[in-house]
Amino acid sequence: MSLVTIAIALGLLAIVYGFVTSRQVLGADAGTARMQEIAGAIQEGAQAYLKRQYTTIAIVGGIVAVIVGLFLGAISAIGFVIGAVLSGVAGFIGMNISVRSNVRTAAAAQKGLQEGLTLAFRAGAITGMLVAGLALLAIAVFYWYLTAIAGYGIGGEDRTVIDALVALAFGASLISIFARLGGGIFTKAADVGADLVGKVEAGIPEDDPRNPAVIADNVGDNVGDCAGMAADLFETYVVTVGATMVLTALLLADTAGTLLGNLMVLPLLIGGACILTSIVGTYAVRLGGGTNIMGAMYKGFLVTAALSVPAIWFMMQLALGDMGMLIGGEPVGDVVQIVDGSNLAEEGLSAQITRFTGWDLFWCSMLGLVITGLIIWITEYYTGTNFRPVRSIAKASETGHGTNVIQGLAISLEATALPTLVIVAGIIIAYQLAGLIGIAYAATAMLALAGMVVALDAYGPVTDNAGGIAEMAGLDDAVREKTDALDAVGNTTKAVTKGYAIGSAGLAALVLFAAYTTDLTHYFPNLDVDFSLENPYVIVGLLLGALLPYLFGAMGMTAVGRAAGDVVKDVRDQFSADPGIMAGTSKPDYARTVDLVTKAAIKEMIVPSLLPVLTPVAVYFVITLVAGQQNGFAALGALLLGVIVSGLFVALSMTSGGGAWDNAKKYIEDGNHGGKGSEAHKAAVTGDTVGDPYKDTAGPAVNPMIKITNIVALLLLAALAG
Amino acid sequence: MSLVTIAIALGLLAIVYGFVTSRQVLGADAGTARMQEIAGAIQEGAQAYLKRQYTTIAIVGGIVAVIVGLFLGAISAIGFVIGAVLSGVAGFIGMNISVRSNVRTAAAAQKGLQEGLTLAFRAGAITGMLVAGLALLAIAVFYWYLTAIAGYGIGGEDRTVIDALVALAFGASLISIFARLGGGIFTKAADVGADLVGKVEAGIPEDDPRNPAVIADNVGDNVGDCAGMAADLFETYVVTVGATMVLTALLLADTAGTLLGNLMVLPLLIGGACILTSIVGTYAVRLGGGTNIMGAMYKGFLVTAALSVPAIWFMMQLALGDMGMLIGGEPVGDVVQIVDGSNLAEEGLSAQITRFTGWDLFWCSMLGLVITGLIIWITEYYTGTNFRPVRSIAKASETGHGTNVIQGLAISLEATALPTLVIVAGIIIAYQLAGLIGIAYAATAMLALAGMVVALDAYGPVTDNAGGIAEMAGLDDAVREKTDALDAVGNTTKAVTKGYAIGSAGLAALVLFAAYTTDLTHYFPNLDVDFSLENPYVIVGLLLGALLPYLFGAMGMTAVGRAAGDVVKDVRDQFSADPGIMAGTSKPDYARTVDLVTKAAIKEMIVPSLLPVLTPVAVYFVITLVAGQQNGFAALGALLLGVIVSGLFVALSMTSGGGAWDNAKKYIEDGNHGGKGSEAHKAAVTGDTVGDPYKDTAGPAVNPMIKITNIVALLLLAALAG
Repeated sequence: MSLVTIAIALGLLAIVYGFVTSRQVLGADAGTARMQEIAGAIQEGAQAYLKRQYTTIAIVGGIVAVIVGLFLGAISAIGFVIGAVLSGVAGFIGMNISVRSNVRTAAAAQKGLQEGLTLAFRAGAITGMLVAGLALLAIAVFYWYLTAIAGYGIGGEDRTVIDALVALAFGASLISIFARLGGGIFTKAADVGADLVGKVEAGIPEDDPRNPAVIADNVGDNVGDCAGMAADLFETYVVTVGATMVLTALLLADTAGTLLGNLMVLPLLIGGACILTSIVGTYAVRLGGGTNIMGAMYKGFLVTAALSVPAIWFMMQLALGDMGMLIGGEPVGDVVQIVDGSNLAEEGLSAQITRFTGWDLFWCSMLGLVITGLIIWITEYYTGTNFRPVRSIAKASETGHGTNVIQGLAISLEATALPTLVIVAGIIIAYQLAGLIGIAYAATAMLALAGMVVALDAYGPVTDNAGGIAEMAGLDDAVREKTDALDAVGNTTKAVTKGYAIGSAGLAALVLFAAYTTDLTHYFPNLDVDFSLENPYVIVGLLLGALLPYLFGAMGMTAVGRAAGDVVKDVRDQFSADPGIMAGTSKPDYARTVDLVTKAAIKEMIVPSLLPVLTPVAVYFVITLVAGQQNGFAALGALLLGVIVSGLFVALSMTSGGGAWDNAKKYIEDGNHGGKGSEAHKAAVTGDTVGDPYKDTAGPAVNPMIKITNIVALLLLAALAG
Repeated sequence: MSLVTIAIALGLLAIVYGFVTSRQVLGADAGTARMQEIAGAIQEGAQAYLKRQYTTIAIVGGIVAVIVGLFLGAISAIGFVIGAVLSGVAGFIGMNISVRSNVRTAAAAQKGLQEGLTLAFRAGAITGMLVAGLALLAIAVFYWYLTAIAGYGIGGEDRTVIDALVALAFGASLISIFARLGGGIFTKAADVGADLVGKVEAGIPEDDPRNPAVIADNVGDNVGDCAGMAADLFETYVVTVGATMVLTALLLADTAGTLLGNLMVLPLLIGGACILTSIVGTYAVRLGGGTNIMGAMYKGFLVTAALSVPAIWFMMQLALGDMGMLIGGEPVGDVVQIVDGSNLAEEGLSAQITRFTGWDLFWCSMLGLVITGLIIWITEYYTGTNFRPVRSIAKASETGHGTNVIQGLAISLEATALPTLVIVAGIIIAYQLAGLIGIAYAATAMLALAGMVVALDAYGPVTDNAGGIAEMAGLDDAVREKTDALDAVGNTTKAVTKGYAIGSAGLAALVLFAAYTTDLTHYFPNLDVDFSLENPYVIVGLLLGALLPYLFGAMGMTAVGRAAGDVVKDVRDQFSADPGIMAGTSKPDYARTVDLVTKAAIKEMIVPSLLPVLTPVAVYFVITLVAGQQNGFAALGALLLGVIVSGLFVALSMTSGGGAWDNAKKYIEDGNHGGKGSEAHKAAVTGDTVGDPYKDTAGPAVNPMIKITNIVALLLLAALAG
């Protein structure tokens, strides 16, 4: 059995897990007829939204596929389509599980907290394993087909495999940015709109069935926090693992014998091993008698992480044979001489090559696990109700709306510091161990845990919906209390995934940039591109790249504000047209509001999503025109790093800040600083509203945006050379 | 008469203008006894604050001066002290004029709008001319002393003049960051605190004499918006002009004959010429029968800008003789051969040298004027009440506090785009014309207009105070209306100065970075430092640099929130201890509140101000320890660019966003969206409160922070080599 088939088998295992577990989940009690009716409305709305979203994306995707096919050939176009379709499938399945588990979680919570937790977490785990499994299968099967069936070589002059992998990543990224942004606009426009007109104007509680926007709000949890998030993490997985393989093929092209092939497959094996450990980990998520839900989640994560240590070691042993064997180059004086007589050194790549052993790669992978753990820990510190940041926002709410927002913004700025230091330390350690390949392995090991991390995240919208259904169906208050308890940790787990995705993007961007420079040397060997900070076109590129997340964030925030305004108007119209709605004698037209938000979200997602696709192309051509091709490439390369340097901070501050605001509100609702209904609570609701588009629309969409910019640059290179 | 004495004479002219005009201003009617009593309290508070601030800074400054003296010698220490003292003097004089003109403006406004405008603008112009004049004199006299009296050479191996100029800039920057941040914390803690407890809790209007924080609020305008701003712009001027001279000395060291000396003095001559044109421009600020105050301001700016075109041409002609003469190197194939046989090309500096003529420098200077004009225009678009951004925030206020803040944040993110594109275009055009020296000249020409720009800005706090005094002294409502009209444009002019300062910092940072790399080659000729983006330590430096403005902003915002909370508590205590205060029968203890804010601001400014001083040193030593000295220098260099790439966006978004929020409130107060007292107005007050520390504390202090980081790096280099 070849190594890649092991990876494929482990990917299939994830699908089997998803299938089996979804039968368990769907077999559970679906509650009363009223509950099922409400859940049906949410399902319908979510499906209608995704259908329209995917139709729109299909048009854009079809055009892009043709362009990719024209410039890079049929195989790349197929790769693009596979990436795009599977990214969409990951989101679609996740959403479908989510909209069926919500009502079952509400029903299970009637029996007890553990029952509710088990059901909701299993639903999340299905999405998690399917995301990781589909992502792994997408790369592994495609790679296996290209190398074993179609017979394309790696490491030589033929770029088919590399281009195809990059195109696959592009497909995943393009869908993901649309899904993240469209879903993000939908969910927050509905949420903010429903809150404004319901809580603030009409004075009715959250999830009150008289509010016409209430179904749209619950649909949003599924299409944004579940489908959008799943597509995003699918993309992050494919791009990170794919980039590690591409970098391996580019930097170690002349590695002798079967070793190069094994090195190419190693990232897939690490991914496969961690699918296994993630599945085991899901069974460790248990309350164990207590009520510490976050603790139960952590048990699952820690079991997965601990088991991944020997699992990754085993896979490395399997792929490399001798863990102590030197791979790569050997330093001779100042330059690096490739062991097997490669000509890479002459191509000016010496700085990027280090010699390393299997053990070095192993330690880099361990580093990836540690970084993941630290980011989870830091995110909990900044968004959990037990620590200074959230409490400081809650306290600031006592003096009003203004001070709540000021403190929230201060925390959001501050929350970037520790993750950045962790990432910087990660870069330094991984690079010292095994050069750029080391950084790639740290990122790969981070993403290998995606199954578990997505499980923790996808659990959130299920419990959020369960609470909504319990409220609307008029279930006992004790049920709502249980779903609220389950939901409370959702803010932190949601923030964790975003920090994790953007943190891994920080590492992956370096890998992608290395792929860019290596490709550049390959395609344009005679062009002397100066990437030094002393070149003003590099500064120009850095500044323009840094601008992208700001402009993108502005568009996302404005879109939410505008669409939420439409929701407010629609709900006001419904209230005034039929006074029976507020009296509770007639039903509001939920579908009308869902339809309105759907149209608004689809319309608003197009322009910002195309920004990172078109900007790299525009910057290259404009600077080439003004200052020559070598400066065009220099500015383009700098743009790629500018977008990550700035995007990392924008995304981290938005996602952590938003989570902190949300939990500061929850902390007050728990009876602190005057509790629900107090002036402090009103101020905290304002902060929560502000944090909504921050953490669920603009912030998380920065991650796919960074990747798209990088991938478009790689494809542009290939297209220009072709 | 040597050229430098012409610059000195023009600098002295600014001082004479300040002296003469301040006699005119101080000779004006100072109003009733009650008005003078109030103004006296503000004066007293402002002086007490500045005294304590300068005492604290003097301690830090004294320690730093000793360190500079130990590592770089006595002359550099003297330069540091001159920069520090004059930066303090600029702030001190500005504040003193401001606290005396406020009451006179209130008195003049009793006569008419034109009378009030003339008095307030003259007060601003005094500060403006003194800032520009003192900054020009600081460099020009010091340079004249070093070269003409002490006999130090330029362009040779002796680094005394260069080190001394850098140390002078360091002194100015260090004071400036303390003054900007301390003043910024004071003014916004008092403002936010007074609003929260006065407007929100007690329901009394702004500037109501019963509010114990009202004097502190008015003191804040003077110590933050006037003294802090003046120190900041003094610093920006000294650093920009100084950096141009240092770069000239470094890059054109081997220019023949007297030409090098003339080139060194040319930036000073441009500064001097524009002092003259700024003085003329101040007399063009007239309403001309209408009531368009902003238009009157623009008239002054446009006259100055238009007259500066021939003035700069004249100075260039004077310094260079033949405007068509080639300066610098001549390209031979791919490399540049220095005309007079310099060895710079061999030192690896060829990429930084271009040949250029006097005309090229002239066009670069014109570019600087155009950039200034565009930044003013863009800032007005984003902060003026006539355009989409402010109106969109006002409209969003209708749906509540949350949507107001969301839209404000969206606008603040968006507002970074156009200025960035202008700066990027400026970099490209200036570089194409005359290389790095071209960029330096564009920045120098921008700063040459500082006299006029500071005049527009310093006018703001005077009118703001005038309104407060009119209110507290119970003057006729018509007077308050006039001062309000005068004050309304203040938000825009204040935002303009900040955009202008940070925009020029974007250009100046490139010049400082070039000085850093050139210095590095000079001091460590055998060290092969790789500034390429392919070097991971460059990425590490970029990320750490990008973090600085975030961390710094977080500290500033938190400080304001904390200090404002203290103000709220103090005012509540005063109200409850003496019910006569609210009844209007007894006077609150204004001084107690002023004293409290003073202590809080001084305490809070220390740590964030030291962040940019200590970080470069820490990064250099840590990375050197881990990865060797060449990577230590690479990371340090990248840190310098990281801080500008990120700081530019943080500062622009904060200052523009804050201005837009403030004017959205004013727009509603003008009767739109329900006017004063409506729900929309309450939401807009929240936005204004949020924008306060954004635009007046954290945002503007980023500018000196960027400069300090860069200058510390230059000094570190010199210290390591010495």
